[in-house]
Amino acid sequence: MSLNPADDRFAALLRSKLGDGVLRPVGERYLEEPRGRFSGRVGLLALPRNTDEVAELVKLSAQAQVPIVPYGGGTGLVGGQVMSAGPAPLVISLERMTAIRSVFPTENVLVAEAGAVLQDVQTAAEAVDRLFPLSLAAQGSCRIGGNLSTNAGGVNVLRYGNARDLCLGLEAVLPSGEIWHGLSRLRKDNTGYDLRNLLIGAEGTLGIITAASLKLFPRPAGVGTAVFQVASPEAAIDLLALARDKVGEGVSTFELIHRQGLDFLTEVLPDVRQPFASPPEWSVLIELGLADGQSPFAALEELFVRAEELGQVQDGVIAQSEAQRADLWTVRERIPEANRLIGSVSSHDISIPISRIPDFICEGRELIAGLGPFRINCFGHLGDGNLHYNVFPPKGQHRSEFDDQRGAIKQTVHDLVYAFDGSVSAEHGVGRLKTNDLERYGDPAKLGAMRAIKLALDPQGIMNPGAVLKG
Amino acid sequence: MSLNPADDRFAALLRSKLGDGVLRPVGERYLEEPRGRFSGRVGLLALPRNTDEVAELVKLSAQAQVPIVPYGGGTGLVGGQVMSAGPAPLVISLERMTAIRSVFPTENVLVAEAGAVLQDVQTAAEAVDRLFPLSLAAQGSCRIGGNLSTNAGGVNVLRYGNARDLCLGLEAVLPSGEIWHGLSRLRKDNTGYDLRNLLIGAEGTLGIITAASLKLFPRPAGVGTAVFQVASPEAAIDLLALARDKVGEGVSTFELIHRQGLDFLTEVLPDVRQPFASPPEWSVLIELGLADGQSPFAALEELFVRAEELGQVQDGVIAQSEAQRADLWTVRERIPEANRLIGSVSSHDISIPISRIPDFICEGRELIAGLGPFRINCFGHLGDGNLHYNVFPPKGQHRSEFDDQRGAIKQTVHDLVYAFDGSVSAEHGVGRLKTNDLERYGDPAKLGAMRAIKLALDPQGIMNPGAVLKG
Repeated sequence: MSLNPADDRFAALLRSKLGDGVLRPVGERYLEEPRGRFSGRVGLLALPRNTDEVAELVKLSAQAQVPIVPYGGGTGLVGGQVMSAGPAPLVISLERMTAIRSVFPTENVLVAEAGAVLQDVQTAAEAVDRLFPLSLAAQGSCRIGGNLSTNAGGVNVLRYGNARDLCLGLEAVLPSGEIWHGLSRLRKDNTGYDLRNLLIGAEGTLGIITAASLKLFPRPAGVGTAVFQVASPEAAIDLLALARDKVGEGVSTFELIHRQGLDFLTEVLPDVRQPFASPPEWSVLIELGLADGQSPFAALEELFVRAEELGQVQDGVIAQSEAQRADLWTVRERIPEANRLIGSVSSHDISIPISRIPDFICEGRELIAGLGPFRINCFGHLGDGNLHYNVFPPKGQHRSEFDDQRGAIKQTVHDLVYAFDGSVSAEHGVGRLKTNDLERYGDPAKLGAMRAIKLALDPQGIMNPGAVLKG
Repeated sequence: MSLNPADDRFAALLRSKLGDGVLRPVGERYLEEPRGRFSGRVGLLALPRNTDEVAELVKLSAQAQVPIVPYGGGTGLVGGQVMSAGPAPLVISLERMTAIRSVFPTENVLVAEAGAVLQDVQTAAEAVDRLFPLSLAAQGSCRIGGNLSTNAGGVNVLRYGNARDLCLGLEAVLPSGEIWHGLSRLRKDNTGYDLRNLLIGAEGTLGIITAASLKLFPRPAGVGTAVFQVASPEAAIDLLALARDKVGEGVSTFELIHRQGLDFLTEVLPDVRQPFASPPEWSVLIELGLADGQSPFAALEELFVRAEELGQVQDGVIAQSEAQRADLWTVRERIPEANRLIGSVSSHDISIPISRIPDFICEGRELIAGLGPFRINCFGHLGDGNLHYNVFPPKGQHRSEFDDQRGAIKQTVHDLVYAFDGSVSAEHGVGRLKTNDLERYGDPAKLGAMRAIKLALDPQGIMNPGAVLKG
């Protein structure tokens, strides 16, 4: 299907139908993405104020066969938000649709427009003494519509699930321009196919999410945080099982940290206060959120004592104040920043069945060593089996010296992930960065079904062309 | 698309390709369903032994344009498992594919074939000290493939979610006969559209689930059960909030019971031991499952004391032994049996946003009273907003005397549900019973998308024709 650019004539059409208030000059930020791998083409930028305007924009684009890029906070890491080839698109940014439409504390439900910034959703939940648990580094600027479109993950997935698991209903504009009014607040509704989960994670290729009803949770009465030094990744996995035996769903966060990340902090962010005098090979950040009458501090102490008896942990720091808690989190949260300052040759957002992670780490280390003297920082959401596996140049050398090896590293890591029944996109999505990987590693029957669904719902191919599925 | 019957010629073709072992005589039970509303047509019955045989059967049916009815345990309540119009179908029953293929205790994952009986899946989880929490009345005969195809609910949804929430991956045969190998054990995998959730709840109209990887959970160290008399449905909802404030996710079950159900037990099942000498207007069955070191009995006692201070509860029984626990559960579990013995004029499986349930109950009572002197038994999974709302004849009269009012009652209840933003199929599905309701109450944009997806994945319309979407 041939598409037409969002040009001056199309702009005039949009103005004639929607007035002057919706189109804006296309600022640089709409043409860039955080990793600098893709740059967008200058088309038109629309900032609709409500769902009807989104629907009108989509309808007119469908009639004119103009491609659309739905735009959230622009924080995605796989290029889903910038169309770098083909006719210049209409970028539809949801940034003016930021309302928290309603809150139902008794039902643990909040309805937000797609442009609401994640942190504002969290704050609105806190205002009624509830928790909206989606939490990730970009929460100050990413928007909930983007979080849902990419099925975002973050540090609380272990307990509360991905963005998908936190959504009860959607309002969305389908590629035809029709509005789906699906803002259900129901926990159970078996009336027909699961369109909600089809749009979640479709990265804007099947429609534009305009609002969502979201699940809230009771706020844990007490929260406790610790960093434990563990003997190995195996020991970390055993420790997680022990913790869940002791406090059940109370384990909110379980993050693996490798010495390499701590060394990077020492190297480029020396102000970050580290928990141990000498950085351990492996450690975990663990957070418990417990209900009324239970002491997270005591639970962490008991856990440490028992885990030490079992040889799982060697040393540990349990936060005794909010300030200490913040310090422990700072270590985990600033590792990605240290990574960026060092500059990786290749970064991977992978997941592996959790019992196979230790073997994966060993084999990965050997294979990468075979390619050169690279440094590996392997860290992340161990509780979910999701690791960030980033490969860096040797100390004193720059990533640019290894540009020609990036492809080999990526393929080595991804092939290994595939051999371990893992995923090459655990939480970031496919975007435009991983469309080849999807074709290489994806199941052919599933890919065929995906293509059939895309063609059925978006026969002209106007919704975010080139993302997820190659054009 | 015109379809052909599964006749002798087709049987001969199947035998020539698959041998003699797969086809069986069509027993009565494949042509009936529990409520006796639909009866199937006699076509052919195939009992494949493995996924390749399922794929071969589907491929041959697609070539011959023969309709297929996928068959699990046959316990569905909406006629999804019997095709009562059109050419006689090929029934493909998964009952010979019952293997628990593998168990990964460290990962909290179990892989079962679709024909595994739900109770056998629960038992396999227990054998490795884990919990598979899907639990419902038919668990001794329903099969996990059917549970997933209908997105079954049950008594533990409040804590653990629907069948959908308990599934990590699927193996399925698509309508083309292709096998999708999607038995992921990953908690996070953002590679492409969510085909898993599309097949879950599609009631066999988009493919045949042949195996599933399922989530297991730590078994709560201690379980406590109580029945509390509550002042009203409002008080029950407040009590639930109080309980969740106290024990967080520890609340596994929260079931509303109305006096009508207890009166029915007294009337037709007098051996059932009831918790209160005089049946209260409203009561709730509450179950807590707590981790190591916490006492569910003490937690229930504390909850009762606090709730009594707040005026939410008037009386209560906390089980002090396994035998007492079983007695309390028996009351809840035998109410559906009492309902069947009394014989309802019309039964409804509905969900309502939880904060609106008290008003719904009041308005429903008034509207039904306007139709006649009916008795209403409204009970069920209050914690999920899912009520079974069943309307019975006056005492001493038989349901058959009110056949001509069934339509009016059904429409009155469903219209009210719709006005309260609820669902007319909370956990049972659409099947063939509610296709008209889906068209009447469904969102037109969603229905359009559903039809497009069905046509894209099953262009010949061979998969369970007439279920979910009208032919």
